[in-house]
Amino acid sequence: MPSRNSQSQSHLTKPFTSMTSWAAVHMQPCLLVRDTILKGLDEIERQIERGEFAWRTDREDVHMNIEAALTDLVGEPAKKLHTARSRNDQVCTDFRLWCRDAIDAIALRIKHLQVSLVKLALKNEGLIVPGYTHLQRAQPVLLQHLLLAYVEQLERDASRLLDCRVRMNFCPLGACALAGTGLPIDRFMTSEALGFTAPMRNSIDAVSDRDFVLEFLSANSITAIHLSRLGEEWVLWASEEFGFLTPSDSVSTGSSIMPQKKNPDPMELVRGKSARVVGDLVSLLVLCKGLPHAYNRDLQEDKEPVFDSVKTIMGMLEVSAEFADNITFNQERIRNALPAGHLDATTLADYLVKKGIPFRTSHDIVGRSVAFCVSRKCQLQDLSLAELRSISTVFDEDVYEFLGVENAIKKFSSYGSTGSECVSSQLDYWVAKLDLSRK
Amino acid sequence: MPSRNSQSQSHLTKPFTSMTSWAAVHMQPCLLVRDTILKGLDEIERQIERGEFAWRTDREDVHMNIEAALTDLVGEPAKKLHTARSRNDQVCTDFRLWCRDAIDAIALRIKHLQVSLVKLALKNEGLIVPGYTHLQRAQPVLLQHLLLAYVEQLERDASRLLDCRVRMNFCPLGACALAGTGLPIDRFMTSEALGFTAPMRNSIDAVSDRDFVLEFLSANSITAIHLSRLGEEWVLWASEEFGFLTPSDSVSTGSSIMPQKKNPDPMELVRGKSARVVGDLVSLLVLCKGLPHAYNRDLQEDKEPVFDSVKTIMGMLEVSAEFADNITFNQERIRNALPAGHLDATTLADYLVKKGIPFRTSHDIVGRSVAFCVSRKCQLQDLSLAELRSISTVFDEDVYEFLGVENAIKKFSSYGSTGSECVSSQLDYWVAKLDLSRK
Amino acid sequence: MPSRNSQSQSHLTKPFTSMTSWAAVHMQPCLLVRDTILKGLDEIERQIERGEFAWRTDREDVHMNIEAALTDLVGEPAKKLHTARSRNDQVCTDFRLWCRDAIDAIALRIKHLQVSLVKLALKNEGLIVPGYTHLQRAQPVLLQHLLLAYVEQLERDASRLLDCRVRMNFCPLGACALAGTGLPIDRFMTSEALGFTAPMRNSIDAVSDRDFVLEFLSANSITAIHLSRLGEEWVLWASEEFGFLTPSDSVSTGSSIMPQKKNPDPMELVRGKSARVVGDLVSLLVLCKGLPHAYNRDLQEDKEPVFDSVKTIMGMLEVSAEFADNITFNQERIRNALPAGHLDATTLADYLVKKGIPFRTSHDIVGRSVAFCVSRKCQLQDLSLAELRSISTVFDEDVYEFLGVENAIKKFSSYGSTGSECVSSQLDYWVAKLDLSRK
Amino acid sequence: MPSRNSQSQSHLTKPFTSMTSWAAVHMQPCLLVRDTILKGLDEIERQIERGEFAWRTDREDVHMNIEAALTDLVGEPAKKLHTARSRNDQVCTDFRLWCRDAIDAIALRIKHLQVSLVKLALKNEGLIVPGYTHLQRAQPVLLQHLLLAYVEQLERDASRLLDCRVRMNFCPLGACALAGTGLPIDRFMTSEALGFTAPMRNSIDAVSDRDFVLEFLSANSITAIHLSRLGEEWVLWASEEFGFLTPSDSVSTGSSIMPQKKNPDPMELVRGKSARVVGDLVSLLVLCKGLPHAYNRDLQEDKEPVFDSVKTIMGMLEVSAEFADNITFNQERIRNALPAGHLDATTLADYLVKKGIPFRTSHDIVGRSVAFCVSRKCQLQDLSLAELRSISTVFDEDVYEFLGVENAIKKFSSYGSTGSECVSSQLDYWVAKLDLSRK
Repeated sequence: MPSRNSQSQSHLTKPFTSMTSWAAVHMQPCLLVRDTILKGLDEIERQIERGEFAWRTDREDVHMNIEAALTDLVGEPAKKLHTARSRNDQVCTDFRLWCRDAIDAIALRIKHLQVSLVKLALKNEGLIVPGYTHLQRAQPVLLQHLLLAYVEQLERDASRLLDCRVRMNFCPLGACALAGTGLPIDRFMTSEALGFTAPMRNSIDAVSDRDFVLEFLSANSITAIHLSRLGEEWVLWASEEFGFLTPSDSVSTGSSIMPQKKNPDPMELVRGKSARVVGDLVSLLVLCKGLPHAYNRDLQEDKEPVFDSVKTIMGMLEVSAEFADNITFNQERIRNALPAGHLDATTLADYLVKKGIPFRTSHDIVGRSVAFCVSRKCQLQDLSLAELRSISTVFDEDVYEFLGVENAIKKFSSYGSTGSECVSSQLDYWVAKLDLSRK
Repeated sequence: MPSRNSQSQSHLTKPFTSMTSWAAVHMQPCLLVRDTILKGLDEIERQIERGEFAWRTDREDVHMNIEAALTDLVGEPAKKLHTARSRNDQVCTDFRLWCRDAIDAIALRIKHLQVSLVKLALKNEGLIVPGYTHLQRAQPVLLQHLLLAYVEQLERDASRLLDCRVRMNFCPLGACALAGTGLPIDRFMTSEALGFTAPMRNSIDAVSDRDFVLEFLSANSITAIHLSRLGEEWVLWASEEFGFLTPSDSVSTGSSIMPQKKNPDPMELVRGKSARVVGDLVSLLVLCKGLPHAYNRDLQEDKEPVFDSVKTIMGMLEVSAEFADNITFNQERIRNALPAGHLDATTLADYLVKKGIPFRTSHDIVGRSVAFCVSRKCQLQDLSLAELRSISTVFDEDVYEFLGVENAIKKFSSYGSTGSECVSSQLDYWVAKLDLSRK
Repeated sequence: MPSRNSQSQSHLTKPFTSMTSWAAVHMQPCLLVRDTILKGLDEIERQIERGEFAWRTDREDVHMNIEAALTDLVGEPAKKLHTARSRNDQVCTDFRLWCRDAIDAIALRIKHLQVSLVKLALKNEGLIVPGYTHLQRAQPVLLQHLLLAYVEQLERDASRLLDCRVRMNFCPLGACALAGTGLPIDRFMTSEALGFTAPMRNSIDAVSDRDFVLEFLSANSITAIHLSRLGEEWVLWASEEFGFLTPSDSVSTGSSIMPQKKNPDPMELVRGKSARVVGDLVSLLVLCKGLPHAYNRDLQEDKEPVFDSVKTIMGMLEVSAEFADNITFNQERIRNALPAGHLDATTLADYLVKKGIPFRTSHDIVGRSVAFCVSRKCQLQDLSLAELRSISTVFDEDVYEFLGVENAIKKFSSYGSTGSECVSSQLDYWVAKLDLSRK
Repeated sequence: MPSRNSQSQSHLTKPFTSMTSWAAVHMQPCLLVRDTILKGLDEIERQIERGEFAWRTDREDVHMNIEAALTDLVGEPAKKLHTARSRNDQVCTDFRLWCRDAIDAIALRIKHLQVSLVKLALKNEGLIVPGYTHLQRAQPVLLQHLLLAYVEQLERDASRLLDCRVRMNFCPLGACALAGTGLPIDRFMTSEALGFTAPMRNSIDAVSDRDFVLEFLSANSITAIHLSRLGEEWVLWASEEFGFLTPSDSVSTGSSIMPQKKNPDPMELVRGKSARVVGDLVSLLVLCKGLPHAYNRDLQEDKEPVFDSVKTIMGMLEVSAEFADNITFNQERIRNALPAGHLDATTLADYLVKKGIPFRTSHDIVGRSVAFCVSRKCQLQDLSLAELRSISTVFDEDVYEFLGVENAIKKFSSYGSTGSECVSSQLDYWVAKLDLSRK
């Protein structure tokens, strides 16, 4: 994983590894010089892998370190290494390679979290929870349905990253300082060797734009906001007042004085760390604002927000998945809570609509029924048919099939709704898509 | 154009127009009721179009206004209008329709600006300008090359919007309050009638997520940052010190006391307004942070930043295009400026490399040649062959083909470089892609 | 209240009113000209107040409208109105006057909210609520104590605004375009007439810096964040799960189908609107980034974020106060909730420390006692002395004075703590400071 | 200097040093225990200072490390160390102490930069440069005047920090977890021992609010924006096109191939790093948004943005001062540039006003004079009296005292203007205030 503060060794070696291939395809001086350079680079790669390479900060960056080391090793031919290169295009190329890998790593962790959520759903088949609007109980929903809402959001997050990756995957190498070169290089060959779709069409654009990281950090910010919402929800649910979920000891902190406590710290941190990902995006937007062409030194500041955003979002995804793997929903507590809130009211309205009562009128009738319950401190299903018919004569014996949250859930039937069958088929979809089995 | 502060009438009528079709496909009560409702809605549509519809704020929003007006018109059947609906899913549906239109409108304006930039390039064939790094002159580039760099960036901006549009174009209608419904609706039919790709798969996700606007405003922010850079560049170029371009009176402000002044206000405003687009994005990110599922009233605040972002970015694009259409590049002033800065130095280095001198050695030789020029206050092309050979015997008569900015430009040959032929073929590409003709 | 989109009339007239005094003190041509101008300005002021003044957008701004109207009224002398002026310094002066008034208006509304919170505290004397860490119940606190925490935060918010006001209250007038003037003006006189502390010392600084609005919007953002926290808390407390507070019908929305629902919309909107205030600040920061001296047209964009921030924060404060005035704390529900969570555990630890047991050891003993209760599903106060002594022989009969939340509250004694007397004296402090009476 | 990633040792030792004093005043068990603890803490302090203390990450934080080490050293008495403490109030106290020191350090660096700017002004007495609006030349100003504009801005930056420091300097210690304690502590004594103004009045507020860092980071952001403007200006001025200043080799980077180049990298980085300071502020605002009381684990994320903001702003100030110490203004180049732009036009208008011509009429006359010059490609001072009188008969022989930038500068006389004497007295003010001598 990339560290915030420095070009970590893995960051250095990755482009370097590729550089060997660049060298192979790119420079075609006399073969002898080429082979000398390649052999030297191989040796340096081995030194790096063994941790024996002496990085020197006075040599400024990875490119200069390697060229200088190569010069020490092979002498004169090393002076040809930088032919048709500039640090301007090299840095952009490295940065795109790095971001491309980072996107893949994040997309993988998104999938892992989806898997954890789907597994959690599979473990809690049939569990009904309150659905909220304004944090007020509104309608019953299957917990599975709610968990899959997050899976949907994560799917869009991944797809956003992949779009970003496609747009990013063009090769700046050969743009040199800003204007290209007069030397006979083959940018299509190097682009292909490095796994890019094609070389960038405009050398000035290639070295001066950073929209690929703006887009990347925007995508991370949206994912982070999604996760902050999951964090909020699970922190709420872990409270004494909700009491819907309990994290295991491995993902909660306790208190020596209150051993019963299970603080959902990981999800508080997930919620909190979203702030950082947003801050990183804002940094980069402010950085790029109003910069004239082509390269400006300001752009050196583009790395750290990206490294930080990537490290943070990966951590958030991992922590969320681990938390999901280690929570228990308190079925009894949830079941006891369900009667409060008249969650079956809208189902009752659907009943009346099916009987031909206009929607607005149905709403009024149900409203009066609920008010009646409130005054009696009872639930809709506790009303006798006589009581119901005193409100509207449309009510009939079959009304009881619509009352109570279990019945209510069964009645939902629209595509994407919380009806048991609808949710079950959605779950099938995700189980298949994520290569899971339903046990 | 959407106004920031209120649901303008055009905003109201657009989804309403669609609503007529919804009604047609969606509700299948007895045909009589349906026809009564449709006739009523048609009448209301006509009233709106004629500006005769009395919008009432006490009826809260567009949906309630229309239902109430329909009730006034057709009585009882109107009470069925809201069947299997909730404002939660209606608002989301309307908002997606609105954003979809807005994306198309912005993409069109991006294309217009690209056209203006390409036309400007066509008008200035062969004009060489300094290319900058650190705002220091570095290499000569064709003005066309620089203008096309912006065209490239705008192309990515448009493609980002279109990706966002694809991801956004799924239909929430039928998600109702949050859980779906038990009434027999056909969400695929309504989705198709409204031009969506498909209904959203999860009703909770459908009413509670706003990632589609976060992505939309991110895309706008990146475009805005691109335009801020264009603004900065053209403000610089319009200064007395650069003196590279002059805006016509129609796109500049003057001063009664200094009639010679041509302030490039439009591009200053373009640069400034980028701030607003970024602010709108931040508002929405902060808004969504930490909100639990499903609908929260906070989300009512999601409209204004979006309206403002759209209005602003559209204005920025239009103003930039108009400015581009109304500027003149001061060819003589630019030509006089070119000799300063030894812009042909890297071309000279390429010359040496082609002669077999290693890159690093070439750099040193050219560095010494430039230093010699600096001490003599002359240009590289002013040096005699003898003087050049006193620095390196590799120099030969053919070196003069590489010196001077005109020669330097000719020597660039790599794909995407500023070489005349490279730029010309890029220009061909854009002329074709944008359906222009090269005169 | 300022409107976002336009220079509302009140915004226009306020500086204008002052302008009459400027005229009086500032321009000393022959007295006849002066009196003619003053008479004309008086007439224009009356027209504005009566709503009869015809504002023309082709005259660009308020200054030009008034000068042109004056010319229509009094002819030639009006041409002297703009002497030793520039719109650059006039706009800055107006803007500071406007912000100064806005700060006073916001500070007043902060005080109103403090009053509402203190009154709410007075109404709920003695009510104990759970204090949370990690949204887990930790210790009992007096509701009054919690409400006063907000009062403290608001007091700092007000003080921050007043510091901003002091720093802002210097007069740019006379800086003219940027360099000052050679005409014999008295900037100290105009500064004093307009209620400024002194004229600004540097004319370039005067027209080009906008740090006063950056600071103002920062202060608003911090206030907004405070209010978002209040919003979150009260939304939580209004949920079925917490059930601690009920908003009256006047500050909640219901549902025709669920008449028992009381959605705390106002506080959701307060929470949501904080996003906008932050977005406005970010807009202004981005706007000012990297602008060279002195005036740039970008700065025209400085007004709307400020108008929006002011309008929003004032609304948030008003709505919060109104909500506070219209909620009831559900004493019985809260009381029933208190036993859960062993909120008296830390008080029990204090008991042991007072008996000479080291803090860490006390913690362990209490931890074991709580664990014992958890296994027995009882509270600490339910344990017999024998049971307690089986854990530690230090426990004695007097331990029961420390158990139960009522006892626990009584034992807190440190300055600023939730002890009844501590809170009571804090309440006295605020009652006096806010000129309230304790009934 | 604080490092971004971790609680650096200096961060750890500072509060610890204070802790010794806390211990001295705070805990009054039997004297023996106290002395044992103090002796142990002294020993630990020495270990830390010698770099011999073994920090253990499994002990979580500085407090636990020290308590555990103390236990190892002195045994049982160490278990009393944490009496009437909680990490909640300790962390807040440490954080305020750290920020207080950081503010002092930043304020000092602000002063250093002011000193550098004033010295630069002293070195360039009498140098006239163009003053800009819209980056167009508008009026002549003394370079000293422009430099002092930055000094003014920095003075407000420092004063903003000091206001923040005053508001921040209240002591949370003794608030414990959130509710205070029942143990007999003296919060006024510990507050005073740690150099705070007073203990905070409300324990819940004390542990849960972070407005002091929001305000701190807002202040840093405004300073950063000021510095970004200085950065932009100096980058522009260092360009070939402006050519007004040259950085020395020690503060510029060159190019082996273009040895004449002096890239103003430090000021580009100053401009760029402003982005980061803004990003840090946004992170913290987003972090705190919508958090309920009292402590939430999210708040752990409050440190890094603060550390980063402080480190960055300190670096920006230092680099700016060093750059200011190492630049030369190119007097000849600037002098040659001055005639362009008719910078004396407004002075000529003042001349006419002094002759009794109304301001608007004067403006018109000067406008026609300038237009005449433009057509003749000459300057105002090149016009003969006859030519001037052909435009207005008010012109007289004395008009030439007002023409040319040197004369123009002399004529400015208003307080705060660019007139030589006005600037000189401002310079005196700053020389005295900053304890400098005028050579």
